Amino acid sequence: MDVVVVGASGFVGQELVRVLARHPVFEPVAFQAHQRAGRRLGELVPGLSVDLAERPIEPIDPRAVAAELAFCALPHGHSGGIIRELRARGVRVVDLGADLRLADEATWRRWYGDDHPAPELLGSAVVGVAEHVRTELASAQVWAVPGCYVTATVLAAKPLIDAGLARRDLVVVDAISGVTGAGSAATETTHFVNVAEGVRAYALGGHRHTPEMRSLLGVPVRFTPHLGPYSRGIAATITLPVADATVDADSVRDVLARAYGTSPFVEVRETPPSTREVRGSNRAVLAATVDDEVGVIVATSVIDNLGKGAAQHAVQGANLMVGVDEVLGLEGLGVWP
Amino acid sequence: MDVVVVGASGFVGQELVRVLARHPVFEPVAFQAHQRAGRRLGELVPGLSVDLAERPIEPIDPRAVAAELAFCALPHGHSGGIIRELRARGVRVVDLGADLRLADEATWRRWYGDDHPAPELLGSAVVGVAEHVRTELASAQVWAVPGCYVTATVLAAKPLIDAGLARRDLVVVDAISGVTGAGSAATETTHFVNVAEGVRAYALGGHRHTPEMRSLLGVPVRFTPHLGPYSRGIAATITLPVADATVDADSVRDVLARAYGTSPFVEVRETPPSTREVRGSNRAVLAATVDDEVGVIVATSVIDNLGKGAAQHAVQGANLMVGVDEVLGLEGLGVWP
Amino acid sequence: MDVVVVGASGFVGQELVRVLARHPVFEPVAFQAHQRAGRRLGELVPGLSVDLAERPIEPIDPRAVAAELAFCALPHGHSGGIIRELRARGVRVVDLGADLRLADEATWRRWYGDDHPAPELLGSAVVGVAEHVRTELASAQVWAVPGCYVTATVLAAKPLIDAGLARRDLVVVDAISGVTGAGSAATETTHFVNVAEGVRAYALGGHRHTPEMRSLLGVPVRFTPHLGPYSRGIAATITLPVADATVDADSVRDVLARAYGTSPFVEVRETPPSTREVRGSNRAVLAATVDDEVGVIVATSVIDNLGKGAAQHAVQGANLMVGVDEVLGLEGLGVWP
Amino acid sequence: MDVVVVGASGFVGQELVRVLARHPVFEPVAFQAHQRAGRRLGELVPGLSVDLAERPIEPIDPRAVAAELAFCALPHGHSGGIIRELRARGVRVVDLGADLRLADEATWRRWYGDDHPAPELLGSAVVGVAEHVRTELASAQVWAVPGCYVTATVLAAKPLIDAGLARRDLVVVDAISGVTGAGSAATETTHFVNVAEGVRAYALGGHRHTPEMRSLLGVPVRFTPHLGPYSRGIAATITLPVADATVDADSVRDVLARAYGTSPFVEVRETPPSTREVRGSNRAVLAATVDDEVGVIVATSVIDNLGKGAAQHAVQGANLMVGVDEVLGLEGLGVWP
Repeated sequence: MDVVVVGASGFVGQELVRVLARHPVFEPVAFQAHQRAGRRLGELVPGLSVDLAERPIEPIDPRAVAAELAFCALPHGHSGGIIRELRARGVRVVDLGADLRLADEATWRRWYGDDHPAPELLGSAVVGVAEHVRTELASAQVWAVPGCYVTATVLAAKPLIDAGLARRDLVVVDAISGVTGAGSAATETTHFVNVAEGVRAYALGGHRHTPEMRSLLGVPVRFTPHLGPYSRGIAATITLPVADATVDADSVRDVLARAYGTSPFVEVRETPPSTREVRGSNRAVLAATVDDEVGVIVATSVIDNLGKGAAQHAVQGANLMVGVDEVLGLEGLGVWP
Repeated sequence: MDVVVVGASGFVGQELVRVLARHPVFEPVAFQAHQRAGRRLGELVPGLSVDLAERPIEPIDPRAVAAELAFCALPHGHSGGIIRELRARGVRVVDLGADLRLADEATWRRWYGDDHPAPELLGSAVVGVAEHVRTELASAQVWAVPGCYVTATVLAAKPLIDAGLARRDLVVVDAISGVTGAGSAATETTHFVNVAEGVRAYALGGHRHTPEMRSLLGVPVRFTPHLGPYSRGIAATITLPVADATVDADSVRDVLARAYGTSPFVEVRETPPSTREVRGSNRAVLAATVDDEVGVIVATSVIDNLGKGAAQHAVQGANLMVGVDEVLGLEGLGVWP
Repeated sequence: MDVVVVGASGFVGQELVRVLARHPVFEPVAFQAHQRAGRRLGELVPGLSVDLAERPIEPIDPRAVAAELAFCALPHGHSGGIIRELRARGVRVVDLGADLRLADEATWRRWYGDDHPAPELLGSAVVGVAEHVRTELASAQVWAVPGCYVTATVLAAKPLIDAGLARRDLVVVDAISGVTGAGSAATETTHFVNVAEGVRAYALGGHRHTPEMRSLLGVPVRFTPHLGPYSRGIAATITLPVADATVDADSVRDVLARAYGTSPFVEVRETPPSTREVRGSNRAVLAATVDDEVGVIVATSVIDNLGKGAAQHAVQGANLMVGVDEVLGLEGLGVWP
Repeated sequence: MDVVVVGASGFVGQELVRVLARHPVFEPVAFQAHQRAGRRLGELVPGLSVDLAERPIEPIDPRAVAAELAFCALPHGHSGGIIRELRARGVRVVDLGADLRLADEATWRRWYGDDHPAPELLGSAVVGVAEHVRTELASAQVWAVPGCYVTATVLAAKPLIDAGLARRDLVVVDAISGVTGAGSAATETTHFVNVAEGVRAYALGGHRHTPEMRSLLGVPVRFTPHLGPYSRGIAATITLPVADATVDADSVRDVLARAYGTSPFVEVRETPPSTREVRGSNRAVLAATVDDEVGVIVATSVIDNLGKGAAQHAVQGANLMVGVDEVLGLEGLGVWP
């Protein structure tokens, strides 16, 4: 099946290239990007086959897209208009951008500080983690892949809230991401010397993934992101109020185990692993316990921000959209040690 | 003034050696340790003067201590008995261990899983961050330096709670430490390949610094620690419920600024820095804001876990105990970039 | 085809597991190891399929091997005896250990400081980089995979020497490896704090890969290894005397390009890349120039020490031994960024 | 004594600020820079005293310099003209730039690809490592501090060549530097994700520190630099041909030990340490052996590229220029672990 990548030059786009290069069904027929158009794919992503390496990055042009499915990996404000055109041409869309993740225009405008590029599309996309919207994806025309921090958080928190183990009250999320999350542009933030050998909180005043978490979980959320000195991986630690005194470690683990019992990419453990165990893969590992002295559930979640947090998650959902096994093309992508 | 280091061979002990090597008043006359006794200081700490490098590490023997002040950096369960003997000989003690940090024996036993080595000493030490117990330190015979995570947390949270800006309800603390916090022993946990290129939560079931935080802050605390791929530094992110709707970013920063206005080692900023800015130093940098959509104060704190988190904090307090300027020997220890 | 891994628990063994998990022809039927026998594979290597993750590590027993091919990844002195037994049972062997890499017993004894475990086997194995011994591998009963530093070096240097561009005189090799090269045991050397944020030379008195380089290149070699603060990857820089003044950058690149024109895993470039470009893969990237002011060729080579430097190289050669395409199971294993 | 820093905003300038902040004799009265003029010092260098942190960075203006000594840390081509003006005003200069390191204009032009900015000054500066030009520094008007790689190399190699242990033939230098060596500008080269988790050779065609090494050592040199995933530190490995068969490990160590017997910053060891042992300091640690099978001396040298490789070396030499103890202000600057 022919697919196209719109926004192929950033880290998420590069990961899409790496993954699609091995996918047995999706055939990437074009790679478009604003940045680095004209360069060959092999200049951005090492280790590709010669054929793929020689393919050029083309300028973005939705009217040139001749494919059944498009992966869009564009900055906020850029995908809305492009999706409008792709939809007009009957192309189904997996959108890794932020434009269609929130249904409410005012909320979008407040968090992104700008007019929405395609307000008529708000609410038209399936929104949520693939494991939570499997059925909807089968018929979805547009899927808005959640933000990386959102996926890590919602995977752990949503089953606990939905099962009634957590009270519908404030959830505190502290998460740390590797530097690929800060983008491929060379900035003061991504200079090695400013990142290495330390860690920092950022976006103290509010990170744009917050309204997504609130929307998908249906509870108040406080989210503080951090930047760590490594390339890939998110570790999210989520503190939720217990619903009542009967909730214990076993019951939270049971709920998570049941929620993901048949999910090939989500594992539930007693002890949280390092993000390096999921590096390069579409896997998520959850752990949870109850701190009964203070009445909270503490759940942890690790994913690769480019894998389950973005490009591989996108391919998983695309698999579900087109009706093939959700693991197609996604096995054996991790690296260890 | 003659001082002795008991427990000189671990990372905290090594940092004590590094700092005392330059202290203008404290004269380290002996270095004792269980581990590595017989080795020269220069084998553990590079860059010492020849004189200091040649000094041997002696076995621990409190009766051999001929000094006015002792720094103890020993595992829990080990310092209690030694402090008893040091006190009997009139030696004042700065204790970096856990034995005298909690006043309640049952609490200690529950968290440390063992009988307390010197229960008669419980409650006899001054406990708390130097900035908060300056007066008490002047006459203290024993000061129990808080745990590294505790110092980071309490510096930011205590003024906010004491000033009534935060409600006396659950405080959520997520913090990340560098690998020196995991000790100098070669273990699976400290193997480079298990630590590098990732981050992990640990002690999900409860970390021993939790009861210290609860005791010093006087509120319920949930604390989850994380291990990051770098050597030195703690970043703590603390979420506290606001007391009422009048509390805003300005008021929390004002309280922090007033609390530390004359403190040479604590700085209050709008934006949290990387831990690398305090690396090697006794500095702490705090930032705070109010998330009024969900009614919480979010405060952040960065310290060096071996500096303000342990050895340099110890020397700062020792300065106060003996009545010299608290900055003596502690300036210019950081490294940047 | 049934294969067995003898020595599955170290980093090389773990990489063999990762790679064989995806190989379309080789079916790993047993995993043996001295260390960690009894543990499940999933405890060592994350992200395996459930089936593979549940497989136990068995104690080493060559008589229990029922397979056509064995991969041995054992410390020096341990594989010789096991290969003797495997050969007696008609099992072909890919040996990642050091026992059969040198043909001369006295040389082996001098560098390894011990009696050889199976001197009658010396000289019986095919020795060399897969690209250089393709023909011999087709009928080889035992292939001794070169050491990681050796493969990096010989790939770049051998074509230049064989083509007569470099004089048969002293070659200087300085190379740096990631920490997986130092083994999975927790030691002072592999403690994060001793490795991170710095680099060191080691084995100044002579590294055991030196006689392999001398033997495969047929020239005097000085080799100094270094340890760098990252997990995977070797960068080797090789300085060779030019044969005469006609040798220039173009001629050395031509020789390398011709030598590897049909090799799927070796690329020749003008500018040396970071080892991170080959991380997780079986790829090697070579670059070379001539410094005509001082009359030397400078060639560089980057590989992944666990990939082309060990386990993936082993699978490539095994592919050639059994007559399937050498790339089988080896594509798409790298991770980027 | 009043001093000025011209070029205070790069990493070398920042390290000068850090060091001068503690110097007991040098009083920095102005900080000038092209970049970042107008910003406060505290925005660039954390942990300064309040007084120093508030000092502005001023535009570069040599006529505004009212000081006895100037430290210049400017890109090549920029310091020549400024030194001309400073000399005209009687200011002594410690130049960390490249303009006066080579005596020959043609050589300078060939390596720097440009006309020299002040050819009349060529040959007028004292050139060399402080330990090697102590006497000349006492009366020097201008000292050209060698490049970081040069200092690491020459410290180890020069005594061996001067003592006749090494033949005056090709010396091969491979060295690896931390990322501070690549400058404070955000570029593709310094993006965390391009540097972390790997190592690369660069400047294969020739690095500008090569002619300095050739000039200071008086022998042919091949030098290949590498970039490593850490912030500070250079490890240089130097392979020199032995003069004759009587040269052994003891004789080379003796020569080095004698050369630096009274030097407070240079240590000679049997085993090369990690660069992290000298991080933040002005120290150099040398090790050396003889590989008699191939007739070479292998010497290693570790320094901090910003410390002994630049700013601290500059201050050491400035101490010698003004006749105070060379260690003034340079002790206790390192950080460990």
